[in-house]
Amino acid sequence: MGCIQSFRQCCDRPKNTNVRISLPAVCFVWQIAMIILFGIFIRYNEESDAHWIEHKTSKNISSNIENDYYFRYPSFQDVHVMIFVGFGFLMTFLKRYSFGAVGFNFLIAGFGLQWALLMQGWFHSLDPMDGKIKIGVESMINADFCVASCLIAYGAVLGKVSPVQLMVMTLFGVTLYAVEEYIILSLIHARDAGGSMVIHTFGAYYGLSISWMLYRPNLDQSKHRIGSVYHSDVFAMIGTLFLWMFWPSFNSAISDHGDGQHRAAINTYLSLAATVLTALAISSLSQKTGKLDMVHIQNATLAGGVAVGTAAEFMLMPYGSLIVGFCCGIISTLGYIYITPFMEKYLKIHDTCGIHNLHAMPGVIGGIVGAITAAAASEDVYGKEGLMNTFDFTGEWKEMVPTRQGGHQAAGLCVALCFGIGGGIIVGCILRLPIWGDAPDNSCFDDEIYWEAEEGNGSGNYVYLFFYMILEVLIKMFL
Amino acid sequence: MGCIQSFRQCCDRPKNTNVRISLPAVCFVWQIAMIILFGIFIRYNEESDAHWIEHKTSKNISSNIENDYYFRYPSFQDVHVMIFVGFGFLMTFLKRYSFGAVGFNFLIAGFGLQWALLMQGWFHSLDPMDGKIKIGVESMINADFCVASCLIAYGAVLGKVSPVQLMVMTLFGVTLYAVEEYIILSLIHARDAGGSMVIHTFGAYYGLSISWMLYRPNLDQSKHRIGSVYHSDVFAMIGTLFLWMFWPSFNSAISDHGDGQHRAAINTYLSLAATVLTALAISSLSQKTGKLDMVHIQNATLAGGVAVGTAAEFMLMPYGSLIVGFCCGIISTLGYIYITPFMEKYLKIHDTCGIHNLHAMPGVIGGIVGAITAAAASEDVYGKEGLMNTFDFTGEWKEMVPTRQGGHQAAGLCVALCFGIGGGIIVGCILRLPIWGDAPDNSCFDDEIYWEAEEGNGSGNYVYLFFYMILEVLIKMFL
Amino acid sequence: MGCIQSFRQCCDRPKNTNVRISLPAVCFVWQIAMIILFGIFIRYNEESDAHWIEHKTSKNISSNIENDYYFRYPSFQDVHVMIFVGFGFLMTFLKRYSFGAVGFNFLIAGFGLQWALLMQGWFHSLDPMDGKIKIGVESMINADFCVASCLIAYGAVLGKVSPVQLMVMTLFGVTLYAVEEYIILSLIHARDAGGSMVIHTFGAYYGLSISWMLYRPNLDQSKHRIGSVYHSDVFAMIGTLFLWMFWPSFNSAISDHGDGQHRAAINTYLSLAATVLTALAISSLSQKTGKLDMVHIQNATLAGGVAVGTAAEFMLMPYGSLIVGFCCGIISTLGYIYITPFMEKYLKIHDTCGIHNLHAMPGVIGGIVGAITAAAASEDVYGKEGLMNTFDFTGEWKEMVPTRQGGHQAAGLCVALCFGIGGGIIVGCILRLPIWGDAPDNSCFDDEIYWEAEEGNGSGNYVYLFFYMILEVLIKMFL
Repeated sequence: MGCIQSFRQCCDRPKNTNVRISLPAVCFVWQIAMIILFGIFIRYNEESDAHWIEHKTSKNISSNIENDYYFRYPSFQDVHVMIFVGFGFLMTFLKRYSFGAVGFNFLIAGFGLQWALLMQGWFHSLDPMDGKIKIGVESMINADFCVASCLIAYGAVLGKVSPVQLMVMTLFGVTLYAVEEYIILSLIHARDAGGSMVIHTFGAYYGLSISWMLYRPNLDQSKHRIGSVYHSDVFAMIGTLFLWMFWPSFNSAISDHGDGQHRAAINTYLSLAATVLTALAISSLSQKTGKLDMVHIQNATLAGGVAVGTAAEFMLMPYGSLIVGFCCGIISTLGYIYITPFMEKYLKIHDTCGIHNLHAMPGVIGGIVGAITAAAASEDVYGKEGLMNTFDFTGEWKEMVPTRQGGHQAAGLCVALCFGIGGGIIVGCILRLPIWGDAPDNSCFDDEIYWEAEEGNGSGNYVYLFFYMILEVLIKMFL
Repeated sequence: MGCIQSFRQCCDRPKNTNVRISLPAVCFVWQIAMIILFGIFIRYNEESDAHWIEHKTSKNISSNIENDYYFRYPSFQDVHVMIFVGFGFLMTFLKRYSFGAVGFNFLIAGFGLQWALLMQGWFHSLDPMDGKIKIGVESMINADFCVASCLIAYGAVLGKVSPVQLMVMTLFGVTLYAVEEYIILSLIHARDAGGSMVIHTFGAYYGLSISWMLYRPNLDQSKHRIGSVYHSDVFAMIGTLFLWMFWPSFNSAISDHGDGQHRAAINTYLSLAATVLTALAISSLSQKTGKLDMVHIQNATLAGGVAVGTAAEFMLMPYGSLIVGFCCGIISTLGYIYITPFMEKYLKIHDTCGIHNLHAMPGVIGGIVGAITAAAASEDVYGKEGLMNTFDFTGEWKEMVPTRQGGHQAAGLCVALCFGIGGGIIVGCILRLPIWGDAPDNSCFDDEIYWEAEEGNGSGNYVYLFFYMILEVLIKMFL
Repeated sequence: MGCIQSFRQCCDRPKNTNVRISLPAVCFVWQIAMIILFGIFIRYNEESDAHWIEHKTSKNISSNIENDYYFRYPSFQDVHVMIFVGFGFLMTFLKRYSFGAVGFNFLIAGFGLQWALLMQGWFHSLDPMDGKIKIGVESMINADFCVASCLIAYGAVLGKVSPVQLMVMTLFGVTLYAVEEYIILSLIHARDAGGSMVIHTFGAYYGLSISWMLYRPNLDQSKHRIGSVYHSDVFAMIGTLFLWMFWPSFNSAISDHGDGQHRAAINTYLSLAATVLTALAISSLSQKTGKLDMVHIQNATLAGGVAVGTAAEFMLMPYGSLIVGFCCGIISTLGYIYITPFMEKYLKIHDTCGIHNLHAMPGVIGGIVGAITAAAASEDVYGKEGLMNTFDFTGEWKEMVPTRQGGHQAAGLCVALCFGIGGGIIVGCILRLPIWGDAPDNSCFDDEIYWEAEEGNGSGNYVYLFFYMILEVLIKMFL
C-alpha cells in the first residue's frame, strides 16, 4: 500500500509542460534507432526490388501490371489519406486544439509507421533465408493500419496528454498491436480484413484504459475549452468525410485480389450509407425540437465502416451490410448521448472524442458479425474454391470448417479486448509518471501549451480589433 | 380556381420547423424499406461474388487484374470524393449555413445512393435468370452519378428547405433520374459518359423548377445571411478544387475500358484548364477595378467539366476540348453576373448556388456538343472498329450511322430537359405542402434552425469575448 | 549607368493595381493562342486514340489493362491534388491572403499546364511522322510536374505580385523548364523521376531570383499582414498533408512500370516519415519552452519528399531513405529559423513561404544524393537487367556505367541551378516594369487589392458585430 501511495504522490507533483529536452530527445533517439534497425533488417521485397525483372521471368508473370503495386496502391493512398487527413481533421473540432489534433496526429503517425514496419515485419514477413524483412506496398498498408489503432487511442486522451506521452503511447501501442495481430491472424487464424477486432477494438480499449489511468478529477477547470466553434466543426467534417469516403478502401486494402477486394468495397459502401440515415435520425430524436448535433454527424456516421470491417470480405450480402450499418448508426449515436456522460461520471473514463461509441462498440459488433458470418458460411454460397480462398483454408488449416472458423473469430475478438484493456492499463501506469510534460488540469485542450502562438492568432486578434474599435468610437464621439 | 386557392392557403400556414418526428420517421421508414428491398433484389455480380474464381476459369480470364474493380475503382473513389466533399463543401460558402451544406448533402447522398442502386438496377442490371439485381463497382459509380443530380438540385434550394423536404426531393429525383436515364441511354441509345444531359441538365432543371415552385416572395428578410465570410469562402474552395481535380475521373469513370477512359480523362482535363482562364478573365472584366469575385472562381471554373461530359469519350480532339472550356467559362461567368439576378427578379426563381450557370447551361451546351461531335464522327478519325466501339453500334444498333446518332443525342437532351422541368414542377407542388418543416422566410440560410448550436459558436463567442474585454477594460480603468 | 538609372526610375513609378484590362487581355490572348497551337500540334497518342483497338491487335497486347492509363492514372490524380489543393492550400497560411493563395495558384496552374503540354511535347513527344505532339496520361503528369516548378516559384513572391505578373512568370517559367528538362534528361541523360533537380531546384531558384529582383525595401509597411490567424494555419495544414500523403505518388508517377514505381513509392514514404520527427524535434529545440511552430510543421516536414526525388527509383534502400529524410528535416527547419531571416536582411531576398528551405536546399541535396546513389550502383544490387532498366542504359547510352552516370547526375544539377538563377534574374527584370499592376509596398499580402470583398467578410463583420453589441449594452443600460 505504501508503495502505491508513494507512486500516487510522485504522480501528483506539479506539472511542468516544458518539453524542450524530452521531445527532441525522444524524436532523435527513436529516429536514429529506426535508421539502425532498418539498416539491419529491412529490404525491398521481390516486387519492389530491381531484380523484379528476373523474378518476373522466373515466375512466368506476363506483365508488369501483375505487380502487387497495381492491385493495392490506389487503396494504399486512400488509407494514407484516412490516417493523416481523416483522423487528423476529425479531431480538430475542439475550439482551441486544432493544431494539437492535426499536428500530433502527424507526429505519432510518422513515427508509428516506421516502428510498425519493423514489428510487423518481424512477425509476418521475415525472410528465413537471409533474416531480412521484405517490404512492399502491402507492408505500407499494414503499417498504416497499425498506426490507425494508436490514433484511435489518441482520440480518448486528446487534449490531455503531452506529445512525449503520445510518443510513448505509440511505441507501446504498435508493439502490442503487432503481437496481438500475430496471435489473432496467424496463431488463431481469424480473418480480419478491415480490422474491426485487430485495429478498432484493440485501439479503442487501449485508449480508454489509458484515459482511465490518467483520469483527471479536476478536468472541469478546462471545461470551457471543451466544445467547438462554428468553423472548427466544419474542419472536423473534412476528417469525417475523408474517413467515410475512403472506408471502402480501408476494408478492402489487404483482402484477396479480385472478388475479395471488390466485395469488401461494396459491403463497406452500403453499410456506411445506412449508418448516415440512422445516426441522423437518432440525433434528431434526441433533441427537443429535432435539431441535429454535429458531434453525431461527425462521428456516429462512421460506425458502420468499423462494424463491417471483419465481415466485409465475406459473403455478408448487400442487405446484411445495410443491417449492420443500420444498427451501428443507432447504437453509436445513443452511445454519444447516454454512454459517454455515464462513463465520465461513474467509471471515471473521460473520452474526448467518444471513441467508445465510434470504435469500441462498433468494433466489438464487427467482431461478432464476423464470427456469425464465418460460422454461417457454406459451399452453397461461396463455392468450393471460393470458400477455401475467402477463409484461407489452406496449408495447416486445410481441415478447418466454417463453424469452427466462427469460434476462432470469437476467440480473436477476446484477444483484442484483453490486449487493449491490459496493455492500456500498463501503459497508462507508465504515463502517469510526472516526467512527461503533460498539462495541468486547468490547461487542457489548449494549443498554447505546446504551440507557439502567432501574434495575430484568434483571441489576440479580437482584442486588437476591440481596442481599435474603441478608439474609433472615441474619436468619432469627441470630434 | 377555388381548389388552387385553397391549396395556396393551405401552403401559406405558419411554418413549424420542428422535424423531431418527421425526420427520424422518414429516415427509419426508408432505411428499413431499403433493407427489405435489398434483401429481395440485390446480390453481388460475378466479379464481386465468391464464385469469381470459377467464373474466371470458365471465361478464360487470365488474371485477377482483369476484374472490373481494377479498371474502375480508382475512378469510383474520385467520384465519391466529388459527391461528398466536392458538392458538400462547394455549398459551404454561406456565412451561417455550412453545417446544412455539408450535413444535408451527406444525408441525401447516403440515402440517394441506396435508392439509386435499386432503381438503376431494375432498369439496367436485372438478371433475367433469377430476377435479382447484380451489383459491382460500376453500379456504385452509377449510383453516385444519380445522387449527383439530386445534389445539383439541392444547390438551387440551399438554405430554403428542410431536411425532410430534401429527402422527398431525393426520393423522387432518383426515381425520375433512373427512368430518364433508361430512356436516354437504352431506348434512344444516346451516349452520355459524363452525364452532361442525364446528370447535369436533368438535375439542374429539376432543382430550378422546384425552386420556382417554392418561391418565397419575402426572402429578402433573410438577405443578410446570403453572402459569405472570409473563411467560408476558403472552405468552398475545397469543394471547388476537389470537383475540378477529379472531374476527369467523373467523365471517364464509366466509359469504355482502354482508350475510352483514357481519352475522356484527357478531354476533361483540357476543357477545365481553359475554363479557369476565361472565367477569371470575365470575372475581372465585370468589376470596375478588375477585381476578381470568389463566386465566379468557385463555380464558373467548373463549367468546362460539365460541358465536355457527353463528348469526353468521343474524338473531340484536344483543341476541341479547349474550345468547349473556353466558351463555357465565359457563358457561365456571364450567367452569374446577369442571368441569376434576372431570373430572381423576373422569373421568380431564386437559385442559391447559381446552378443554372454551373450545371444547366453548360449541361445543355454539353448535350449539343455531344450531338455535333457524334454526327461528325467518321471511320477516318475513329477507325472502323473504333467507331463501333465508341458509339456502341452493336446488336440492334448495328445499322446506326454517326449522323443519325447525332439526332439521337439531341433527342436525349430534350428528354433530360422535359424530365427535369416536368418532374421539378410536380415535386415542387408536393414540397409546398406545409407539413415538411421548412423555415419561415426570415430564417432561411441559418443553421440554427436545424442544428444544435454549440455554446461557443461563432457570434456567441464574440459576444462572450466582448463582455470579457469590457470587464478587463473596466477593471484596468478603476484600479 | 544612365540606362540602368532610368530603368530604375521607370520601375519606381507609383503603382496602379487596376488589372481590369491587362488580366483579361492576357487570359484571352493566351487561351486563344493555346487553342490555335493545340489545333495545329496536339493529338491523342496511340493509347488514348480510338484506333487503340487496332494498335492493341498489331502490338499483340492482350488486354485493355495494359493501357498506360491503368499504370499511371491513380498517380496522376494524386499529383493533380498536390498541384491544386496541396500547393494552393499550403500558401493559405497568411491571415488575409488565402484567396490569392488558392485562387492565383488555380489560375497559373490552369494556364501553365496547357503551355507545358506544348513545350514538353515539342521537346519530347513530337511524332516525326506527322509533326504532331501525341499526348496521353504521362503527358498530363509531366505537365503537372512542370506547373509545380512555377507554383514553387510563386511561393517566394506570394502576396507581392499581381496576377498578371504571375501569368508572365509562368509563361517564362514553363518555357525555361521545358528547355532545362530536355537538356538534363535527354542530352545529359540524367535520371530524375521525382524532379529534385528539374522541378524543385529549378523552381525554387527561379522564384528566389525573381523575388530578389523584385525586392521591396519598404515591405515592412505590410508587416502586420505577414503572419497567420488560427484557422488560416489549419487551412495550410490541408495543403501540407495532401502534399505529404501524395508525395509517394509524385515521385513514382513517371518512373518505370513495375518495380520502379513500387520502389519509388516506398522510398518516399519512408523518407517523409523520418522528416516529420526531426522537423518537430528541431522546431521544439528552437523555442525557449520547447513549443512547436506551425510554420515548421507545415513546411519542413515535406523536405524529405523533395530530397528523395531523384534517388527514389534507385536502390536507395529503406534505411537510405530514412537517412535522407532525417537530415532534411533538420536542415529545412534550421533554414526557417536562421537562413530565411538572414537572406531577407543581408541578401535582400524576401521569401514569403520559405521555399529556400523547403525546395531549394532539399532539391540540391536530392540531386547530390541521386548522383551518389547512381555512382554507387552495381550489378550486384540491381542485377544486370535491373541496372540497365533503372538507369535506362539502352540505345546510344548502352556503354554508360554507373560511375559516369553519377557525373551526369551532378551535371544535371548544375544545369538546373543555372537555369533557375539565370532565368529568374532575366524574368525578374521584366517583371519590374511598372505595367503589371502589382501592389504598393503598404498593400502587400492583402486580398482586398485583387478580390472583391464580400460585404460580410472578416473584419467588417467584427465591426458590425461590435456596433450591434454596443447598441445592446446601451439599451440594457438605459432600460
